[in-house]
Amino acid sequence: MPRIAIIGLGLIGGSLGLALKRAELPNLEIAGHDRERGVASRAKKLGAIDVEVRHPADTAAGASVVIIATPILQIRQVMEDLAPGLGKGALVTDTASTKRDVLAWADELLPDDANFVGGHPIAGKEIAGIDAAEASLFEGRPWAVSPSLGASVPAIQTLEHLIRLVGARPVTIDAAEHDSYLAAVSHLPLVTATALFSLVSGSHAWPELAALAGSGFRDTTRLASTNPDLSHDISLTNREALVHWLDRLGAELQRIRQLIQDEEHPDEMLAAFAEAKTARDAFLDELPRKPGPDQGETKTAGEHMMTLMVGEYLVKRTKELDEIMKARAAHDEDRPRGAGKGR
Amino acid sequence: MPRIAIIGLGLIGGSLGLALKRAELPNLEIAGHDRERGVASRAKKLGAIDVEVRHPADTAAGASVVIIATPILQIRQVMEDLAPGLGKGALVTDTASTKRDVLAWADELLPDDANFVGGHPIAGKEIAGIDAAEASLFEGRPWAVSPSLGASVPAIQTLEHLIRLVGARPVTIDAAEHDSYLAAVSHLPLVTATALFSLVSGSHAWPELAALAGSGFRDTTRLASTNPDLSHDISLTNREALVHWLDRLGAELQRIRQLIQDEEHPDEMLAAFAEAKTARDAFLDELPRKPGPDQGETKTAGEHMMTLMVGEYLVKRTKELDEIMKARAAHDEDRPRGAGKGR
Repeated sequence: MPRIAIIGLGLIGGSLGLALKRAELPNLEIAGHDRERGVASRAKKLGAIDVEVRHPADTAAGASVVIIATPILQIRQVMEDLAPGLGKGALVTDTASTKRDVLAWADELLPDDANFVGGHPIAGKEIAGIDAAEASLFEGRPWAVSPSLGASVPAIQTLEHLIRLVGARPVTIDAAEHDSYLAAVSHLPLVTATALFSLVSGSHAWPELAALAGSGFRDTTRLASTNPDLSHDISLTNREALVHWLDRLGAELQRIRQLIQDEEHPDEMLAAFAEAKTARDAFLDELPRKPGPDQGETKTAGEHMMTLMVGEYLVKRTKELDEIMKARAAHDEDRPRGAGKGR
Repeated sequence: MPRIAIIGLGLIGGSLGLALKRAELPNLEIAGHDRERGVASRAKKLGAIDVEVRHPADTAAGASVVIIATPILQIRQVMEDLAPGLGKGALVTDTASTKRDVLAWADELLPDDANFVGGHPIAGKEIAGIDAAEASLFEGRPWAVSPSLGASVPAIQTLEHLIRLVGARPVTIDAAEHDSYLAAVSHLPLVTATALFSLVSGSHAWPELAALAGSGFRDTTRLASTNPDLSHDISLTNREALVHWLDRLGAELQRIRQLIQDEEHPDEMLAAFAEAKTARDAFLDELPRKPGPDQGETKTAGEHMMTLMVGEYLVKRTKELDEIMKARAAHDEDRPRGAGKGR
């Protein structure tokens, strides 16, 4: 009987078990282990696994596929534990949010005849744990696949097959590239949301601020509710790339700050907001701009079109703004400057 | 017949009309004006207004309540237009996202016997325009109320009554305070989301990044899809407070950057993430920390409790981390440093 072992039965491991069970593979047995007492039996009760196993090493025994779905910093220890019991040629994968360190640990600790193919389902929610698990968690989501140098083609294909089976879309990517990209679209938003929430909720006026906070504040800071272990492990295992993007965000905030402060050219600030909206609307339409053959300074066709779209809007709007600004300037002369300084 | 006039029939003005009609006030007539051709007749067709009026001045005539729901920078002109036709003692209000300038314009332009009470429904969505209007838009939302110095108590009560009628919760607040608070919970998130989206979508790797972006990126950057006119008008009329909070966010991002870079004390970074999560979970439970009698350096009871909660978690976690970090340090000695530098 083919056996899949899942080590770590939290939101991701549990959801994976449920999704695999739902796929009704013939004769498949799912063995599960979780180091926290009671979690594996809960997973069995919920139908995420068939067999509860005490120790990671025993979980791996006889399994053709081993999925490590523990927190990132536990993976190294799990690999040490399961290495001796691993069957020859077994596919070993993981679900960690960073891949470079995981690949290095696999290279160091797993036997040469095992096939390690790193994985990262880009799915999740703020609620952690087996009770939050859902069979549909991965549907329509990207799932990064970062094979080790020694992984066989059939092993890679097996993982891709499993990923499609649970409704996700495999995206093959080099581990270092993965971490560098995820730093931008996942880890930077996580830290930004945390900084924004910490800053505002740390204000003495927080009770008043909270009473006036709307859905925009809630959504922008949603990631501040991420499991702190996960945030910590991500920041530790992707430090350089994350710091790089944090610095770039600091510079971008400075750029927009200058535009807001520039009383002479409000149209440039308007253009920045309009460009962001246009680009995001295109992103939501799943039409990200494709880069042209030249990756340098030259604008791509998509960028040219966007410039035209934004331009048309701005021409219409700038004329109107000119008049408003004139009226405003005339009015401002009657008022003392800096009267409403922010606190 | 009592008459309410709405000037500007976009998402907010249109939704307000629908919500007031749904409240079925006896004999109420809602007159509406929009400077864009065809919008008022569309609003009438959708049931948001009873009577379509060509000019703001005519809209105000005979109205006991006049609601200005235009973009912020148009309000000044609208006030000039409607002032001559305004009935004695009429309540005039607005729905703008900033209040200080609006109050100043009202003071300058409206007749002394009018009652201006500024308003700001903290509700909205990214889709603008009359066709996005919903009667339920304001349900359960806060609605800031900033009366002018000359506004009568009955006029203020009338606005509060209307606000409750459409399902929202009036929050009385001084105009300058409003702008300073909203800079933190609304305008700062707006600019942050815009900076984050502009930065990441401006990368040469954007097509690859977009393919790996999950719901976290989408939510954190949602406000980048805000109507650029609105973002522009907000930034212009709340410049000082917004710049102040942008500078503070820059400093907070620097603080977290330092924690992430500090290889010696990963527990402090973990604590920062844990504190943010604990505070945000409390916020979602609608239990923002209440400040104690001393607003100074002393911790409030709520903060003490939070420190205890976070502390208990950290004690448990730090021991575990120590062991992981030791294993990691031993492992790192085998690897060249800085191998995976972010790009």
